[in-house]
Amino acid sequence: MTHGDSRTWRRHDPAARSFASDNHAGVPPEILRAVAEANEGHQGAYGDDVYTEAMREVFRAHFGEQAQVWPVFNGTAANVVSLRSMCAPWEAVICAESAHINTDEGGAPEVIGGIKLLPVPTPDGRLTPELIDRRAWGFGDVHHAQPKVVSISNATELGTVYTPDQIKAVCTHAHGLGLTVHLDGARLLNAAAALDVPLRALTTDAGVDVLSFGGTKLGMMYGEAVVVLNPDAAPGLPFIRKTFMQLASKMRFVSVQFEALLGSDLGLRCARQANAMAARLARAVRDIPGVEITRPVEANAVFATLPADVADRVRERFPFHTWDHATGEVRWMCAFDTTEADVDAFAAAIAEEMRR
Amino acid sequence: MTHGDSRTWRRHDPAARSFASDNHAGVPPEILRAVAEANEGHQGAYGDDVYTEAMREVFRAHFGEQAQVWPVFNGTAANVVSLRSMCAPWEAVICAESAHINTDEGGAPEVIGGIKLLPVPTPDGRLTPELIDRRAWGFGDVHHAQPKVVSISNATELGTVYTPDQIKAVCTHAHGLGLTVHLDGARLLNAAAALDVPLRALTTDAGVDVLSFGGTKLGMMYGEAVVVLNPDAAPGLPFIRKTFMQLASKMRFVSVQFEALLGSDLGLRCARQANAMAARLARAVRDIPGVEITRPVEANAVFATLPADVADRVRERFPFHTWDHATGEVRWMCAFDTTEADVDAFAAAIAEEMRR
Amino acid sequence: MTHGDSRTWRRHDPAARSFASDNHAGVPPEILRAVAEANEGHQGAYGDDVYTEAMREVFRAHFGEQAQVWPVFNGTAANVVSLRSMCAPWEAVICAESAHINTDEGGAPEVIGGIKLLPVPTPDGRLTPELIDRRAWGFGDVHHAQPKVVSISNATELGTVYTPDQIKAVCTHAHGLGLTVHLDGARLLNAAAALDVPLRALTTDAGVDVLSFGGTKLGMMYGEAVVVLNPDAAPGLPFIRKTFMQLASKMRFVSVQFEALLGSDLGLRCARQANAMAARLARAVRDIPGVEITRPVEANAVFATLPADVADRVRERFPFHTWDHATGEVRWMCAFDTTEADVDAFAAAIAEEMRR
Amino acid sequence: MTHGDSRTWRRHDPAARSFASDNHAGVPPEILRAVAEANEGHQGAYGDDVYTEAMREVFRAHFGEQAQVWPVFNGTAANVVSLRSMCAPWEAVICAESAHINTDEGGAPEVIGGIKLLPVPTPDGRLTPELIDRRAWGFGDVHHAQPKVVSISNATELGTVYTPDQIKAVCTHAHGLGLTVHLDGARLLNAAAALDVPLRALTTDAGVDVLSFGGTKLGMMYGEAVVVLNPDAAPGLPFIRKTFMQLASKMRFVSVQFEALLGSDLGLRCARQANAMAARLARAVRDIPGVEITRPVEANAVFATLPADVADRVRERFPFHTWDHATGEVRWMCAFDTTEADVDAFAAAIAEEMRR
Repeated sequence: MTHGDSRTWRRHDPAARSFASDNHAGVPPEILRAVAEANEGHQGAYGDDVYTEAMREVFRAHFGEQAQVWPVFNGTAANVVSLRSMCAPWEAVICAESAHINTDEGGAPEVIGGIKLLPVPTPDGRLTPELIDRRAWGFGDVHHAQPKVVSISNATELGTVYTPDQIKAVCTHAHGLGLTVHLDGARLLNAAAALDVPLRALTTDAGVDVLSFGGTKLGMMYGEAVVVLNPDAAPGLPFIRKTFMQLASKMRFVSVQFEALLGSDLGLRCARQANAMAARLARAVRDIPGVEITRPVEANAVFATLPADVADRVRERFPFHTWDHATGEVRWMCAFDTTEADVDAFAAAIAEEMRR
Repeated sequence: MTHGDSRTWRRHDPAARSFASDNHAGVPPEILRAVAEANEGHQGAYGDDVYTEAMREVFRAHFGEQAQVWPVFNGTAANVVSLRSMCAPWEAVICAESAHINTDEGGAPEVIGGIKLLPVPTPDGRLTPELIDRRAWGFGDVHHAQPKVVSISNATELGTVYTPDQIKAVCTHAHGLGLTVHLDGARLLNAAAALDVPLRALTTDAGVDVLSFGGTKLGMMYGEAVVVLNPDAAPGLPFIRKTFMQLASKMRFVSVQFEALLGSDLGLRCARQANAMAARLARAVRDIPGVEITRPVEANAVFATLPADVADRVRERFPFHTWDHATGEVRWMCAFDTTEADVDAFAAAIAEEMRR
Repeated sequence: MTHGDSRTWRRHDPAARSFASDNHAGVPPEILRAVAEANEGHQGAYGDDVYTEAMREVFRAHFGEQAQVWPVFNGTAANVVSLRSMCAPWEAVICAESAHINTDEGGAPEVIGGIKLLPVPTPDGRLTPELIDRRAWGFGDVHHAQPKVVSISNATELGTVYTPDQIKAVCTHAHGLGLTVHLDGARLLNAAAALDVPLRALTTDAGVDVLSFGGTKLGMMYGEAVVVLNPDAAPGLPFIRKTFMQLASKMRFVSVQFEALLGSDLGLRCARQANAMAARLARAVRDIPGVEITRPVEANAVFATLPADVADRVRERFPFHTWDHATGEVRWMCAFDTTEADVDAFAAAIAEEMRR
Repeated sequence: MTHGDSRTWRRHDPAARSFASDNHAGVPPEILRAVAEANEGHQGAYGDDVYTEAMREVFRAHFGEQAQVWPVFNGTAANVVSLRSMCAPWEAVICAESAHINTDEGGAPEVIGGIKLLPVPTPDGRLTPELIDRRAWGFGDVHHAQPKVVSISNATELGTVYTPDQIKAVCTHAHGLGLTVHLDGARLLNAAAALDVPLRALTTDAGVDVLSFGGTKLGMMYGEAVVVLNPDAAPGLPFIRKTFMQLASKMRFVSVQFEALLGSDLGLRCARQANAMAARLARAVRDIPGVEITRPVEANAVFATLPADVADRVRERFPFHTWDHATGEVRWMCAFDTTEADVDAFAAAIAEEMRR
């Protein structure tokens, strides 16, 4: 994916609409309200505050009593902090070749974490026991970076969604090999909304050990969380979070956003809307001649091919990214605040430019 | 300093007052307003937005046209990202033994940055050419981590402030040795307010190469910035920021806070208030028998000694940190929202507990 | 490859023969003599000695006047030190998926070097301009670890050899993209012997920027060398070598071995013998029914498949490694001291066990 | 200390004598013989050989049955590999400010190990429980790099020697605080020889957890060893050794040297000779007017001050290092092969140049 498609943005422009990423959106009013309310008086720093305490309770309600939650600033950090805690210095992480940790984090796991990734090509972004076995070998051989963690993403980078059974299969297999399982849940709410299952079904109950839980793409200003479901799998988390530059001083402002997102159905509503708009978009463009939907639309992403010149003309009206320059495949993301009118206007623009 | 002095915080409690840290405060209303206004419509992610553009202009107005500004999430990160960019892998950083990078960042410069620090004991937290010379040697000797950067803090961890001339002396000396200068400006606004000089006098005009500019302690929710004043001194900054997990996706919300802080006199007013309250506190306690002010009060910190049992009783009413467990020295910080009434109540509590 | 196939070795047993690795051999008598002669009196440490000076001259004679040579202890180190010097912290290395740096160094490039590898599947261990292009993209995008170095191996891990023209094509393409080229030459002498070309034709004259030159597999006790052919491509090498724990104090003992190896035809003779024995072995087993030679035999390695039980029985007589447990492919290596009689006995053992 | 005092060395020059370092010496004939004898036939690589097995037995005889020994290439590596294994990523190492790991390894512990050092000034290079307490605090505070290991050197960089009781005091205190103890024994044989106690009295029996055992300065060509006395204190050692680029392929050549050194009294004889020559040198120069012995001469180092011009003239005849450029203090090291005649000639040169 190429970042940096640029356009001229204007100040305070509610009409500006993008299909480039779910992080081109701002935040729902509930988040602004929560932040404002948490701004009263003094509170302890670094998590010693009443909002962080409340947030912990909210996470436990979703993920179980044993769940420990450690907010960090962004998704790259949630992943690197999780993996560094889960691995000794000589241990390695099996992941899909398309995983965000492998493709889109500027090498952070290797450069900052000092962690070797063992990527596996997948047809659709999902790992399976068979695919894991392609990299899960060489145990005890000092010449071979020792596989220790399987990292999966749900929803995946390719817009697909693991079911609870698929995650269970991965976890059971990994645990049988002495590996632990990390789930990159930057869009876990989208997956849960897509399947209409509780978060717990996709994580704790499926055997996941550590979770990067995503808030930003679902409507927060900033903030993700490392959620430790199996404390034995992630020693030293609070120390690693600090040393890896991820401890917010005024943490109440992160925590209160999580509380708002997960303490009500706000997060789920945001995810449902984004997913529904992706489905609507897929339906709307499916029959435009020359447009080809290239992957299953299971969460809030639509992947498609269309002629390059058409794509370029549409992009002048609505920003979006080219996913694969070799094939010309593009990616259209819907956000919590994408409306039916947005989708229809976008689909109309595509149809219109295609006819030119 | 011991973190984690804890008390029971209550929700939405405007009366809660702490002297433990300037990050126990929330944010002024201007910051909430700015964040809300930036929340309109979609904007590009990762800094490709109109608020980030505006913020860059604001920084250039303060620091000069050559200034490049890269927001990050917190102060540890601003320092580590700066230093990593300023040093090759075999190069080292001269700093005061009391520097935050040496004492209070969980080892982040070494662990994450892979940077050796060369600390120098100082009488008051300030480096001088003479003190720099104690570590600036061994050039060209492969056995010796090569000194490359001098890192100073203004205001210092000990509440003292460098004047423009003192910084100039450090920079001239460092440059003469082929070193560059980093300034940890987590409280640069406090220093500027204390001396009543523009930010530029303490940075660009004094010869500083790279600045960690602090927003959080002066009233932002989150966000600090690496400000590159001499681009030759800090190659690869945008790549390092991303790889070091410090690139915010919805960056507009950081940028707009900086714009609010520095585009008006908001930041300066916040700093002035905090400084004035520290001065008031020092005056108020100076004559209480048994209380000894231990360091010059030049910014927003007051260091003092008082009997341990008295300190403990006061602490039950107002949180603050013990700075040095060996000597019993304590630190009292004032924030932008500390009021005269707060200070007077605190001083009265000290006097009262001292009399018991 | 699985390491640690084990057998019971006996002390001072000239009859012990292995086909597991070229590093199961000891050293030729010339090396012992050189080491003994260098043992006279005192010499400066860390390379400030007459033997290191002489070694530099020998390397310059092979690689050109601009060549700088920095001995290190082993091949992993030669590669990591080279790559760390060639890359900034955010830069990455394109290599064949089968490259030793990717598969067999315990994750050292990532863990110690903090370097992301961008591996490409290859049919035969060799990169081409087309294969490089599969990973050489995303320049300027901070989310993408920036490709900076192409690392090739000659001979490759799969026993194939790049010709001068093939290396030239890689270098020209890489340089055109702004990348530099690293050559892992753990078996460069084998490649040169195989093609009957000077070392220079495969390195300096083909455009290689930095070379890991292998001594150990060709007959040295220990010692490899980073050879910088393009000094602009590898800043700070002597500092990195020290900091990366690769500076030998009594360096004369490494240097004098290199002098012996490359100052006469010793190294080339060792390589020719190893190559010739691999060719002989391939010829000898080619017609044994049930044995399949699986890759071109261009240097000193023979890859083959044979029934697992046969392999196990042969292994009790001569150690060798299984290369791929999935397919049962095995690898047989010949060393500088492998004799015709050794090969014939080994081939006879295979034939014999195959008939059982 | 400044490295790189240089002179012109000649080839095969038994008369060349240096007092700059104990690593300016070569090796005793027993080492050459051992290496030559190990050169018979093939042996397994990476430590799977009969000589490594024998070496392990020799170490166990000295250090106890529980001792695990992992040869590495040099002293920097022995220290970094030990400490990396003993510390989690957020843990730190208390050491003397003068410790080799802090001053003379090009920043390797920080840069490669990612380990923060917590140095303490000492009067004579030795830590005590009281000095340890100056850095052993802040446990549980995430802002403070967590002290985990105390690293001491015996003999120290300043030529002093810890007695068994002094080491016991350090270990007991450290263990009481939940810390483990690392001993940098680059010159442990010198310490044992000085005190006339077994190695075990200074290590296993005193409570040391992990030892860097030095071979090179005592007469080996290359090779040091990590000796794990308390396996719980050093998890993953073999993996870390490989990943940290310290696994020798032809390990038999390292192992056989250790066997020669420690399996007979060779190492001890070497150490005794070096120590005796330092004592002789100290006696010989003590009464030269203008020469001041500055530190206790307990092992094989003599520290002294003398006029700078005299030092420079002597240095033209015998290399040695300036230890402290500020004070002009110099260091004279004796090696296993320093003779009485060498010492007398050196002392005479000093006396002579002093009289000019």
